[in-house]
Amino acid sequence: MKFNLSETPVRTTYNLINGLVAPRPIAWVTTKGPDGRVNAAPFSAFNYLCLNPPILGFGVAARPDGSEDLKDTARNIESTKEFVVNVVTEDLGEKMNLCGVDFPPGVDELQMAGLATEDSTVVKPPRIREAHAAMECRLYQVLKPGPTQSRIILGEVVAIYVEDKYIDPKGPYIKAEDLHAIGRMNGLDNYVRTQDAFIHIKRMNYADWQKAGEAKPGL
Amino acid sequence: MKFNLSETPVRTTYNLINGLVAPRPIAWVTTKGPDGRVNAAPFSAFNYLCLNPPILGFGVAARPDGSEDLKDTARNIESTKEFVVNVVTEDLGEKMNLCGVDFPPGVDELQMAGLATEDSTVVKPPRIREAHAAMECRLYQVLKPGPTQSRIILGEVVAIYVEDKYIDPKGPYIKAEDLHAIGRMNGLDNYVRTQDAFIHIKRMNYADWQKAGEAKPGL
Repeated sequence: MKFNLSETPVRTTYNLINGLVAPRPIAWVTTKGPDGRVNAAPFSAFNYLCLNPPILGFGVAARPDGSEDLKDTARNIESTKEFVVNVVTEDLGEKMNLCGVDFPPGVDELQMAGLATEDSTVVKPPRIREAHAAMECRLYQVLKPGPTQSRIILGEVVAIYVEDKYIDPKGPYIKAEDLHAIGRMNGLDNYVRTQDAFIHIKRMNYADWQKAGEAKPGL
Repeated sequence: MKFNLSETPVRTTYNLINGLVAPRPIAWVTTKGPDGRVNAAPFSAFNYLCLNPPILGFGVAARPDGSEDLKDTARNIESTKEFVVNVVTEDLGEKMNLCGVDFPPGVDELQMAGLATEDSTVVKPPRIREAHAAMECRLYQVLKPGPTQSRIILGEVVAIYVEDKYIDPKGPYIKAEDLHAIGRMNGLDNYVRTQDAFIHIKRMNYADWQKAGEAKPGL
């Protein structure tokens, strides 16, 4: 089936891309407003986009009611230029989800989810104490791609916290097979776990490939 | 463990972010050079960043040898302003991986992997015939975040192809539970499958939350 997006309803485009770009990592973003209030919300239009320098990017959609008000996360970052990306693991899925509830203004999502905060090392917004890892970021660039109140936010990672047990000192590497991060799939409530779902595809360079005796087209 | 990235080797930063930002969707990008030659390569620093307008973003790292030459994918997109993101599913993992081999210039990765192409509907670069879905994109913006030959490429999706059996006409939605996309994890060869790994966390709005009798802090 083919869809020319100039003739496709926005809702359909949303459904298709949401189903085809998956699994998505989840940024559980903490920010601090100019009033000092801490906000926490999850975003799955997220990834790193560069590693040297280390740049994370994520999209903040307009409010579903079409309001002119930016979502708190985008407004706080435009104002204070800093944010923290907390890593979402299987044990914290329900609490992350509560931070996505559209509570009335002034409600503290973290308190509602029974979560606490811990000071960051370089930036002002705190990390979530219960999160096993977090990346502190300084705003690199904000893009306003559309007529709506959507934002694409790029930040440079300036510091990283990881709970000791998830670090393999040999690299140091992240023990991703122990961390059990979850990813976002399509629809309203679909996620994917990474526990017991690993597969391995051996990365090859040209020399490996030649050695494997595969120097012929069409495997 | 805490890492201040201003005092952390680039290689360590790479390892940490690669392990913490996961699972990552994979863009298997086809481009066409000014000479008409088709290139195909996989990138996992990838996601959608906005849905209205529909913007995909991905990072193309500098060549590992420190060369001043842009990778073919970035060079072709800067020249022709178009690309196609093919979706990577479990059945195509090995073939996608072959497209990541550093073949000498002039080698056709798709031919080496035994893959064919199919004309796109709107853009000039073809999609991969064997891929079950593909998103045709026009260049929206290129960012050059660092001193190296790294690029962040943003493209607007203009057309989408999905094999009929993966479309639920009710939405239309993508049958992601049948598509079996794979995601990228840490290290050289770790991926995650989405088959049999779904979990469900019910998305709540404020009214649902109140009904659930959870109108108290600290669940």
